Amino acid sequence: MRGFEPSEFAARTQGLQAAMMAEGLEALLLTTEADIRYITGFLTRFWESPSRAWYVIVPARGKPIAVIPSIGAALMGTTWVDDIRTWRAPDLTDDGVGLLSATLDEVLGGSAGRVGLPAGHESNLRMPLNDFWALMALRPERQFVSDGDIFRYARSVKTLAEIDKIRAACGVAGRAFDRMGEVLVEGLRKEDYYRGFQRLCLEEGADFVPYIAGGHGEWGYGDIIAPADDSQITAGDVVMLDTGVLLDGYFCDYDRNFAFGTPPRQEVQDAFATLVDAVDAGAAAAKPGVRVSDLFSAMDQVVTGGKNSADSGRFGHGLGLQLTEWPSLIPDEHTMLVEGMVLTLEPSIETTAEGQLLVHEENIVITRSGAEFLSPRASRTFKVF
Amino acid sequence: MRGFEPSEFAARTQGLQAAMMAEGLEALLLTTEADIRYITGFLTRFWESPSRAWYVIVPARGKPIAVIPSIGAALMGTTWVDDIRTWRAPDLTDDGVGLLSATLDEVLGGSAGRVGLPAGHESNLRMPLNDFWALMALRPERQFVSDGDIFRYARSVKTLAEIDKIRAACGVAGRAFDRMGEVLVEGLRKEDYYRGFQRLCLEEGADFVPYIAGGHGEWGYGDIIAPADDSQITAGDVVMLDTGVLLDGYFCDYDRNFAFGTPPRQEVQDAFATLVDAVDAGAAAAKPGVRVSDLFSAMDQVVTGGKNSADSGRFGHGLGLQLTEWPSLIPDEHTMLVEGMVLTLEPSIETTAEGQLLVHEENIVITRSGAEFLSPRASRTFKVF
Repeated sequence: MRGFEPSEFAARTQGLQAAMMAEGLEALLLTTEADIRYITGFLTRFWESPSRAWYVIVPARGKPIAVIPSIGAALMGTTWVDDIRTWRAPDLTDDGVGLLSATLDEVLGGSAGRVGLPAGHESNLRMPLNDFWALMALRPERQFVSDGDIFRYARSVKTLAEIDKIRAACGVAGRAFDRMGEVLVEGLRKEDYYRGFQRLCLEEGADFVPYIAGGHGEWGYGDIIAPADDSQITAGDVVMLDTGVLLDGYFCDYDRNFAFGTPPRQEVQDAFATLVDAVDAGAAAAKPGVRVSDLFSAMDQVVTGGKNSADSGRFGHGLGLQLTEWPSLIPDEHTMLVEGMVLTLEPSIETTAEGQLLVHEENIVITRSGAEFLSPRASRTFKVF
Repeated sequence: MRGFEPSEFAARTQGLQAAMMAEGLEALLLTTEADIRYITGFLTRFWESPSRAWYVIVPARGKPIAVIPSIGAALMGTTWVDDIRTWRAPDLTDDGVGLLSATLDEVLGGSAGRVGLPAGHESNLRMPLNDFWALMALRPERQFVSDGDIFRYARSVKTLAEIDKIRAACGVAGRAFDRMGEVLVEGLRKEDYYRGFQRLCLEEGADFVPYIAGGHGEWGYGDIIAPADDSQITAGDVVMLDTGVLLDGYFCDYDRNFAFGTPPRQEVQDAFATLVDAVDAGAAAAKPGVRVSDLFSAMDQVVTGGKNSADSGRFGHGLGLQLTEWPSLIPDEHTMLVEGMVLTLEPSIETTAEGQLLVHEENIVITRSGAEFLSPRASRTFKVF
């Protein structure tokens, strides 16, 4: 089934409203694709266009209210939201700010009120700064404040229906990874194995493949975020592909390392086995009540002996409506794991060659009894194509 | 060739610095993928991850300075930028704000100074609000103000090298559209023709296909931004596919309408011919010195007889590093066209069935002598598969 039952959105909204009350917020103002989709179900690739702003208000009680460009009215009308207010955007004089302010007046019962905005790490305000300044200037007595991170916390704990979608996305990428032998040939350029892998993902059922990164080399790779280029793979190379496949609006995010032609040199094989062991250690540690920092430490113990020297900055992160979500698996993040959190375990290790590294990534969900893998687990030995 | 010569980035920077001086800005602060890539060449799909903020400062003189997470240092090091300052992100205590503020101190020669930010339509601030507030609080005497839209204006006028990339992206989509007969069969679901078209785009050379929208129906379609679903095409349907294909970081953005099985009903054929005529009228009007609003009017005259009733809100827009860019083709936008602007002409028309419409789109570049089509022009009659 695509989408979710209205009851799921109602439950999400009620959960947020309880948190809003605790935080002293009379309304939430949402502006980003993921936040708006989380609370409404509004799904489209149209966010690729930065031309129009989209607003959703979560009041203290009742359903969310959409304040959106008229081009989105039909699609928003298919969601569980029924209060949809539109303007014809883009409007150079007032691009929805007046309508948004008036709607807030109505929701807050006056010109004051305390409005929360997602404002912490992972968040941003997807509206023109001029319009945000104008919105505040229209109602100087209204407070626009951080939402106290309640929204990112709510999003971090997934329902069973959400977990099913992430599992399905993981399955798509897994089947595509299994078929990489159809793509990898000596001399192939990076831009072509990027394309080939995307094609396989689509054939295996992906709706979209927004994220691909990768690298290849004898000692690993120097960069894990590099774009398509014309560098060629040669026998003995490790080839890494990292993907975010989208299925019904939910991502997987994991990678696979392949050996090409022959198994890579022993040091590289050993380093990779260490990463798989680190993921195992992370998964073993992942239980409700354990802290995110403990999960980091469990992996870091295996990779560096506890030195915390990962240059990528973290050993995994949340996952779901976005490729990466809060929380980050770092030593300072002491949030407690709870059932339903979906995480990536993503340790990296430097190989003995200057600036070269390996990274390995799997996706898990926290269940009552511990971690369940959503991605098909990689073995400790390289698959050689 | 992928990327651009360093001289191209130097010229872009110098152009901006002249505009900054006129605007009274001592530095620009950039935070978004497109703005940062425009001035540095930093190209990666890693922006799909919202976890880390990225900053680039354009000083009044000299090259841009990157203040970025260490995970991006290697890739930024391949660009023309040589002053790259990094922190290990995510950092829950200070996620680069201190480093950014100190770098601004250095650039501005003290704790004050006037810093411009893209703040108008099409822009947003891609950093957590809490961090923006902290940045301002660190230096209360520093002004963070709108850049007066100089950045979006600079981006709107493309160089020959940029135009070549957009033309190439248009070519990829064109070859994929030509092959849609390989995909379209009776009973095919929308999610499958979305996938099939993406696959063709990759085979024809796309790096990525971030944007697909479409619709189908006997009288047109009710929505032009809808996601993949399981609705099926039947004989007599019009099938519309709109795409943003990426090649080396540059988009095309145009659609094609196909007839499936048999030609659609006469009213629909007539409405489509009107849209092609409107595009022709827009292209004929598109010359340096003509206003954007005149371009809108030329098309609106054909579509509605000058009533300006397009519910999509506009009849086209800028195009390049993003799927849609400033300016919007609307009656109130009086910006003058100049050589090098790349635009979409995208009129839409309501058919006689309630809520159903057709949309047709082509991509042009403004040359000294008028519009040159970058997309292969559609004919006035439907291609029937």
